[in-house]
Amino acid sequence: MSYSAPIKDMLFVMKELAGLDDVARLPGFEEATPETVQSVLDEAGKLASEVWAPLNVTGDREPPQWRDGAVSATLGFKEAFRQFVDGGWQGLAHPVEYGGQGLPRLVGAACLEMQKAANLSLATCPSLTDGAIEALLMAGSEGQKARWLPRLVSGEWSGTMNLTEPQAGSDLGMLRARAEPQADGTYRLFGTKIFISWGEHDMSGNIVHLVLARTPGAPEGVKGISLFLVPKFLLNDDGTLGARNDVQCVSIEHKMGLKGSPTAVLQYGDNGGAIGERIGAENRGLEYMFIMMISARFAVGMQGIGLAERAYQKARGYAKERVQSRPVDGSSSCPVTIVHHPDVRRMLGTMRALTEAARAVALVAAAHADRAHRHPDATTRAEHHALYEFMVPVVKGWSTEMAVETASLGVQVHGGMGFIEETGAAQFYRDARILPIYEGTTAIQGNDLIGRKTVRDGGAVAKRIIGDIERTVQALEASPAYADDAALKAMHKHLAAANRAFSHAVDFMLENAKADPNAAYMGGVAYLKLAGVMLGGWQMARALIASHALMHEDPAFHGAKIATAHHYATHILPQAAAFEATIVAARGGEGMLALSEDLF
Amino acid sequence: MSYSAPIKDMLFVMKELAGLDDVARLPGFEEATPETVQSVLDEAGKLASEVWAPLNVTGDREPPQWRDGAVSATLGFKEAFRQFVDGGWQGLAHPVEYGGQGLPRLVGAACLEMQKAANLSLATCPSLTDGAIEALLMAGSEGQKARWLPRLVSGEWSGTMNLTEPQAGSDLGMLRARAEPQADGTYRLFGTKIFISWGEHDMSGNIVHLVLARTPGAPEGVKGISLFLVPKFLLNDDGTLGARNDVQCVSIEHKMGLKGSPTAVLQYGDNGGAIGERIGAENRGLEYMFIMMISARFAVGMQGIGLAERAYQKARGYAKERVQSRPVDGSSSCPVTIVHHPDVRRMLGTMRALTEAARAVALVAAAHADRAHRHPDATTRAEHHALYEFMVPVVKGWSTEMAVETASLGVQVHGGMGFIEETGAAQFYRDARILPIYEGTTAIQGNDLIGRKTVRDGGAVAKRIIGDIERTVQALEASPAYADDAALKAMHKHLAAANRAFSHAVDFMLENAKADPNAAYMGGVAYLKLAGVMLGGWQMARALIASHALMHEDPAFHGAKIATAHHYATHILPQAAAFEATIVAARGGEGMLALSEDLF
Repeated sequence: MSYSAPIKDMLFVMKELAGLDDVARLPGFEEATPETVQSVLDEAGKLASEVWAPLNVTGDREPPQWRDGAVSATLGFKEAFRQFVDGGWQGLAHPVEYGGQGLPRLVGAACLEMQKAANLSLATCPSLTDGAIEALLMAGSEGQKARWLPRLVSGEWSGTMNLTEPQAGSDLGMLRARAEPQADGTYRLFGTKIFISWGEHDMSGNIVHLVLARTPGAPEGVKGISLFLVPKFLLNDDGTLGARNDVQCVSIEHKMGLKGSPTAVLQYGDNGGAIGERIGAENRGLEYMFIMMISARFAVGMQGIGLAERAYQKARGYAKERVQSRPVDGSSSCPVTIVHHPDVRRMLGTMRALTEAARAVALVAAAHADRAHRHPDATTRAEHHALYEFMVPVVKGWSTEMAVETASLGVQVHGGMGFIEETGAAQFYRDARILPIYEGTTAIQGNDLIGRKTVRDGGAVAKRIIGDIERTVQALEASPAYADDAALKAMHKHLAAANRAFSHAVDFMLENAKADPNAAYMGGVAYLKLAGVMLGGWQMARALIASHALMHEDPAFHGAKIATAHHYATHILPQAAAFEATIVAARGGEGMLALSEDLF
Repeated sequence: MSYSAPIKDMLFVMKELAGLDDVARLPGFEEATPETVQSVLDEAGKLASEVWAPLNVTGDREPPQWRDGAVSATLGFKEAFRQFVDGGWQGLAHPVEYGGQGLPRLVGAACLEMQKAANLSLATCPSLTDGAIEALLMAGSEGQKARWLPRLVSGEWSGTMNLTEPQAGSDLGMLRARAEPQADGTYRLFGTKIFISWGEHDMSGNIVHLVLARTPGAPEGVKGISLFLVPKFLLNDDGTLGARNDVQCVSIEHKMGLKGSPTAVLQYGDNGGAIGERIGAENRGLEYMFIMMISARFAVGMQGIGLAERAYQKARGYAKERVQSRPVDGSSSCPVTIVHHPDVRRMLGTMRALTEAARAVALVAAAHADRAHRHPDATTRAEHHALYEFMVPVVKGWSTEMAVETASLGVQVHGGMGFIEETGAAQFYRDARILPIYEGTTAIQGNDLIGRKTVRDGGAVAKRIIGDIERTVQALEASPAYADDAALKAMHKHLAAANRAFSHAVDFMLENAKADPNAAYMGGVAYLKLAGVMLGGWQMARALIASHALMHEDPAFHGAKIATAHHYATHILPQAAAFEATIVAARGGEGMLALSEDLF
């Protein structure tokens, strides 16, 4: 089996770190009993391992084909997607009133990781549908919700997000697509959108495009953008599919990776205008898109985690099989499997520690989202909402940067074979590279973490987290095993140091983001990575404490968790001080900031 | 132009850091006058930019084709290679007596970088020929030298290195190819060799395979390996090409990158045995191969540096062209080219700082090699030899790891366009990934740096370097500009800290390499990267001092160098402490070292 879902680790994180029991007590989540959650994860794991995972390489080798405006998905994808739809997986965490199962996001996130791990390209499609569902839930009229949501939630129809244009990537203020109002209340859309994942394909009955465009006379820049729903097939009054709309896929991209996912160039309005409905108020499109984007960014973070887990499993398999060289400690006079060599252990340990830490951060974030949505107390909801919002850029940015690193280490574990495409490790390295780019580059996540998430509230959430981590640092020292346990001691030392480094970085951002924005934003990626390293360390520290307490229940699992947390403490957390140094060093604006453009 | 050779920086490094004037005074290097060197670099740059560079993408898109045992190189490669041969470039640093130009390696290394940057796949071919030339110079008989060297040095024939077999990669002790002695003094070779770069192609008249194999009754393991020369075409007595030898290319690999370079599986002896000559003494093959490998590893380091430079030039071009978003400091109300955004500056600065530092380390190492070969005083030769040998694993391991990072940053600078193959940034990311693997993985370079280069002489060379760096730290502080210069101050602080970190790491290795080899070798890659970061920082510090002194001669160049050195100090050198922490943390052997195999 090329992928086996890490359900044990997921359940450990959900129960011990993310508070699954508490989440299940929130109003509306009564169904999320331990038994249900276990069986949902088991079933999701089965679909992922048995149906989706074997097709991952197929998508890479036989990518979707464009012909005359139609795109046929990789052979096998349609059937694999149908099983996903039939199982009701699209609606797992969506509202019951539109046909979903209404389970917590915490559970949804774990399933999402499995889908991403099993088949990153295929899993992109339902995540975009999630985005369309969210947009409608947030800003659609009751009529729009009734018309579009049931068949999106069921997975019968898929969704897309249409933001980018050739001249407007990260800078959506530059977009030019236009929407002209019609007498009947609809709009006619015109323009070119690029980088549209699953913008055209043959796996679902209809494709619901969510499109950003400008209405006539709208303000310049980001304040004049509205959100429209433009279906591939128009709906008849009775809800059946009607005429083909005036949106055409003119080509798909030739990409380095994620080849199983068709990336479309969509042309709107070449034949009179694509008919669309406005979603929500005029000129508030970007605002809606930003709210949708929070989930989309979280989902891309899960892509990173899933891909990293898969790369780890592949490398681990090779390391246990490949025989090469005698051990350096002389413990055998024969060559051994390479998992016995210290550097291979370091690489596997780093891959695993990063993946488990990022998973823990993401699932804890998902639980905050659940509390933010469902907690009966408004103040508590707001608190969790703020924590969730703080964590999302980290989940997106750090998990995807870590995925690139992990996939690269996975190639390295394979040695020369890693560079040969048939081995399969190279695909993860190629696929991973888009993750720190799309849905906002790592720099954009860093900017978000500085501007909206740290500076806007005067560092309140950041400092609350710093305080919480300080309590975890104390708990490590207070642990009964502390005196004799190297892992607890190492974690105590390095987490405390990382927390100090982060605290200094927060102070730096509070002081400089407005006074010296170039200096602050030059440190944005380092700040984001520092936050990731530290939040990951925090969760690994909590896991370490939990595993010490639960050791008797499952010595193998908890022993491995302790070793992994130990590795995280000694191999990942020391990066924090280096990030701090690079952040603070930009003050003054010398060096690269001052260099004139022609000298680059 | 897709590549412009960084001749100005090369000459600066050669003159100010590597001591070109002194090297030119060594016996035999009298021709290496400043004028000659300048004109050699100019000519090499022209060939690289105008002829080789445009074909780089062609090799990726239209890789060599195998048919019935023959491999045809990418269209255009043969002609581009012919121009290289006609220009005498193969023999640039090879002995005059065999038709070479006998120029210093320092000059050769700079030209090598240009070839690697221009067309990494094509440039692999002559580097393997260099290896064959070295092997013959070192261990060939006079007759063998006379027969084989002139047409290898001229580039008429190319060479290969045949080490790897399916079961024997890093562990050459496991190789099984056999060589049976014949009555006439020749051998018949049998076996399968894999991963043979340019093992078969149509660009040169003959291919001279250097092959490791065992003679009957040879000792087991690495002590029973001999070196053989097995030509594709046998030579007649008059030196003309004779019969086709019994070595067949049975396939070429389907790789993630470096696609323009055919990677062959070679089958020896399916029709009675491939006829070969032994090079040097029986059972000393591995020893010769290790000596050859020093140059080969240096050349792979130059691949990393060349690729990083090219990736930088590509990203810089895009950053100056692509308009997106207003500046964060409010200095413009219009969108600007992205080179104005702080994170893009950070990425370009990091790419450039790493590349320039690695170049400086490599060229300084090449000058040590020149002194080790040509200095009249034996003690001085030995000293430089030791320094060169210490630096080679760093040049190989660190420059290639940095190339992967740089190529990845290059993709990131391009945003979504970086993931589209047509853009070209993705090729560098794919090509780069083999560099930290072949000619010895980074872990193997790390092991070499620990075992042979640090521990064997009791840390003598390492400590000498630490002392030299300490003097550079003092020189920074003593610089007349110190009081008012942020770059000098930052470099002073961070280089001193990195040197302390390295010093602790050296002590750790000296204490533990034998007592606790697992702990030591678990830190091997971190030790190698720490050494790279520090040696790079040292050379950037020397460059910083030199540029301050030379500012009046060329304010633009030296201003940019100071900014780059400043960036290196604040963004790269702080990594040193993190590497130190991870090295020392392995002591005790807990964590991943203690984890039982089944728990991975």
